[in-house]
Amino acid sequence: MSDYMELAKKRQSCRTYKDQKVEHEKLVKCIEAARLTPSACNSQPWSFVVVESPDLVSEVAKTTMHLGINEYIGQAKAFFVVVEERAELMPKIACMIDSQYFAKGDLGAVTLSLCLEAESQGLGTCIVGLFDRPKLRQLLNIPESNGIFLVVAVGYPSGDKVRDKHRKPIDSIVRYM
Amino acid sequence: MSDYMELAKKRQSCRTYKDQKVEHEKLVKCIEAARLTPSACNSQPWSFVVVESPDLVSEVAKTTMHLGINEYIGQAKAFFVVVEERAELMPKIACMIDSQYFAKGDLGAVTLSLCLEAESQGLGTCIVGLFDRPKLRQLLNIPESNGIFLVVAVGYPSGDKVRDKHRKPIDSIVRYM
Repeated sequence: MSDYMELAKKRQSCRTYKDQKVEHEKLVKCIEAARLTPSACNSQPWSFVVVESPDLVSEVAKTTMHLGINEYIGQAKAFFVVVEERAELMPKIACMIDSQYFAKGDLGAVTLSLCLEAESQGLGTCIVGLFDRPKLRQLLNIPESNGIFLVVAVGYPSGDKVRDKHRKPIDSIVRYM
Repeated sequence: MSDYMELAKKRQSCRTYKDQKVEHEKLVKCIEAARLTPSACNSQPWSFVVVESPDLVSEVAKTTMHLGINEYIGQAKAFFVVVEERAELMPKIACMIDSQYFAKGDLGAVTLSLCLEAESQGLGTCIVGLFDRPKLRQLLNIPESNGIFLVVAVGYPSGDKVRDKHRKPIDSIVRYM
């Protein structure tokens, strides 16, 4: 039995990366794992752009640093760009709710999957939510009809220290009934 | 190194459950793992109601079966109810976007974490998105100010066969640049 807890404890936002290329095969494996993520009615409302050619990596990094934050992203060696696709729900359900009703949650789950598979392979990731959308859309030729959900920076972490995770006390977030 | 791919391949929507109670400690461990999920600005916009007392489990199951779908949910032995909480973003970011801008994605990720930790412990789960919200809110005393995001049915699977996963062809969901 795989130990999810161990993986959840180890995965953290990586903010310093080694100057070491990420193998294409490892990036492909992240997509293969993410593809298996569950979604509402198995609608899979996602697609991915994997950015790995150095010049484009550098341009994508700039779109995440335009607010003067996230400067460490300049060290990342690749990016996953998570794109929202139209969700085809089961007819029985599609007649009741908007096609994208569950999509944001599904996209959040698929993004976590990408990060967990990367962690399994010894790669660091950092999820970035704010970026220059028009510029990123143009760089990656993403149609206006698709939302750009999140960007995930990828690379080999330059250290292996797992920092303490700061979370709300467990008793404050759960009730048992 | 934990193998996330193995876990992603094994986890599936469980639609038949054994008549076997789920240990409280295992449910707690699922919450402990989910609590570690990354979120925007570490905002952790979630709380959980864990339903395990048999009478209430039965009542909650009914709220998911009111549309005449999900009848197998009546076999589940526990539920995680994932509740949306207000996200406190970093001031630098909170001045630009709504507090809940990233919350749905974070809630999707935390729901996947619950399912993965359950799978690690040999438990089956099924994520349910449509349920009688007013009734569930009343049963669990969830304030009107909080959204009920998803319900996760939990129990021991009555079989161990991993079904084939049907997903879009990988080449149709990814571009490499």
